[in-house]
Amino acid sequence: MSKFFEIEKTSQSKARAGVLHTDHGDIQTPIFMPVGTVASVKTVHQRELKDDINAQIILGNTYHLMLRPGMDIMQQAGGLHKFMNWDRPILTDSGGYQVFSLSKSRKMTEEGVKFKSHIDGSYHFISPEKSMEIQRQIGADIFMAFDECTPYPCEYNQAKLSMELTHRWLKRCVDWTKENEELYGHKQRLFPIVQGSTYSDLRKISAEVISEAGAEGNAIGGLSVGEPEEEMYRITNEVTDILPKDKPRYLMGVGTPWNILESIGLGVDMMDCVMPTRNARNAMLFTWQGVINMKNEKWKNDFSALDEFGTSFVDRDYSKAYVRHLFVAKEYLAKQIASIHNLAFYLDLVKVAREHIVAGDFYEWKDSIIPQLKQRL
Amino acid sequence: MSKFFEIEKTSQSKARAGVLHTDHGDIQTPIFMPVGTVASVKTVHQRELKDDINAQIILGNTYHLMLRPGMDIMQQAGGLHKFMNWDRPILTDSGGYQVFSLSKSRKMTEEGVKFKSHIDGSYHFISPEKSMEIQRQIGADIFMAFDECTPYPCEYNQAKLSMELTHRWLKRCVDWTKENEELYGHKQRLFPIVQGSTYSDLRKISAEVISEAGAEGNAIGGLSVGEPEEEMYRITNEVTDILPKDKPRYLMGVGTPWNILESIGLGVDMMDCVMPTRNARNAMLFTWQGVINMKNEKWKNDFSALDEFGTSFVDRDYSKAYVRHLFVAKEYLAKQIASIHNLAFYLDLVKVAREHIVAGDFYEWKDSIIPQLKQRL
Repeated sequence: MSKFFEIEKTSQSKARAGVLHTDHGDIQTPIFMPVGTVASVKTVHQRELKDDINAQIILGNTYHLMLRPGMDIMQQAGGLHKFMNWDRPILTDSGGYQVFSLSKSRKMTEEGVKFKSHIDGSYHFISPEKSMEIQRQIGADIFMAFDECTPYPCEYNQAKLSMELTHRWLKRCVDWTKENEELYGHKQRLFPIVQGSTYSDLRKISAEVISEAGAEGNAIGGLSVGEPEEEMYRITNEVTDILPKDKPRYLMGVGTPWNILESIGLGVDMMDCVMPTRNARNAMLFTWQGVINMKNEKWKNDFSALDEFGTSFVDRDYSKAYVRHLFVAKEYLAKQIASIHNLAFYLDLVKVAREHIVAGDFYEWKDSIIPQLKQRL
Repeated sequence: MSKFFEIEKTSQSKARAGVLHTDHGDIQTPIFMPVGTVASVKTVHQRELKDDINAQIILGNTYHLMLRPGMDIMQQAGGLHKFMNWDRPILTDSGGYQVFSLSKSRKMTEEGVKFKSHIDGSYHFISPEKSMEIQRQIGADIFMAFDECTPYPCEYNQAKLSMELTHRWLKRCVDWTKENEELYGHKQRLFPIVQGSTYSDLRKISAEVISEAGAEGNAIGGLSVGEPEEEMYRITNEVTDILPKDKPRYLMGVGTPWNILESIGLGVDMMDCVMPTRNARNAMLFTWQGVINMKNEKWKNDFSALDEFGTSFVDRDYSKAYVRHLFVAKEYLAKQIASIHNLAFYLDLVKVAREHIVAGDFYEWKDSIIPQLKQRL
């Protein structure tokens, strides 16, 4: 059996180009993972994800999927891959983050979290074991340990207690997955999550505990929750210094195009974020030339291609003036076009980043391109 | 120069299979025309319209397009084909129907209609001449005379006065189009519209007046506005008895799949309706087996293909259970899938109808299939 993660090239210091081997195909890292919260990457057809965006892996959200369609239907369908007709890899979060941020009310104990559905107010309970069970039922290729994600800012003591709880919960997650069979006949791998807020000593402890769990990949949680970017980079750097070099590292919930490149520079291999799709729906486009507010008056008679450096059909098929018109007229197609554009751009961004890692000039390239990516067009 | 309309086969009595030759390509008739109100067929990409739905001609709405993006931008773009990147034929309505039904307030005189925009409350004026000018600026291959469309029910005298106004306006439309040049270098053809509400004697007069105008095609307006189906069929039949046999006949705003087939049986060649897209967005699917309410509980664990007899990728790629889930979760993709499905079905419906006309068994086929199309699944 081939190794799960192979590093092809390490550029200068920390950035690496690698390959993740899953039963649903290989993933070239560093990789950005589009978010398909409730079994759909919003406004995007599955064939567009594959053929036009070149998504190699997508995310599903445990919290949303347990409520709708629910695990009865998920299991009858044979898991999320079959349910949504996506035969490439899937990663699921544990539900922890969203239970804490989305459910109307919740009560946390050592055992787990009781919460009220944001949809119909019904009560549900999720524990480390339950999260593992649900993620197995979803059938993700990579699934996450059940953690508590601290908000920002977070007092030291709260961050410490929360981190310790996350570590105790990790043990229960590991135990449960060892004692219970995988479903659907493909390999499903558990990634634990480093917590500890913005406190270096806590992050160090957490990164060591998580490393010792010996998982096939590790995640960094609790960042991109409102802290300054410099804090996020500092903590990421400290954590990737400790996490095993031969395992993939997943930075959760990141971020802007420049966050993506900086994180890759700090040794991160996997990232996800709702930003490219959410901002697309609000008319914000990310491009190699900078950031576009598509509703801006200045595009109203700019009949040039949406993005002459874009990789997907929407960049060639539609003009800036047309897409602006669709946003102004509140047409659905506006959101669809912008979502495909942004996701295709994010996938192009990590592909080009990988090429520079392989070529050995990643850091120079990153520093030269970031000011351009940040420009407001 | 080849003729605009060629009839290939007339089936038994009135149904005909023909071809419309336009500068943007041929149209096989009978044809259904998807509605792209404001330069977009809602939720559908242009390449999907071409490759997956097989749309041969689409509609634009003069009223909406004059307000947004406006004729300045439309002309700078070089017309609607270029603006929205659609190189097949386009038909525009005259704006009359929508000025009467959509604008917040309006004042009609012999000269034309002053109305208030439904978007920003600004005042606009549209006359027969103005409608012609705008439609030329849009650059439709087929454009409609400016008419008044009576509501249902409508008193005899009102219907008569309105019809007479429509006839006077037609003369002004014809005069203006003769005196003014076409734009963009492709042929643009004016279709006049028969009115007269549900009164046979008025419809007879109107059909004769419209026929005498000698246009290259003729339309039947003022139907599908709330009258019983039998009234619609009766009037359509009376009007197609009078309209020239060698010119295409366009029945405006029709309708359900069975309305489409019955109308074809009455000698109609072209139809348009928002029903396949609007109903799709409300989870109603039309299929060869009948009508589906996609939100129905019964589909929640039906993992069979969305429509095993469907012609487009959505019918194969997605299951009923998945699409139901998307509707219940209010995901954008639900509307996108259902819209493509319904439009592809409508285009398949008229394609198969045409095959039966050519084969000479259209009426038997129509009568056998309609009860099935009407079934609630």
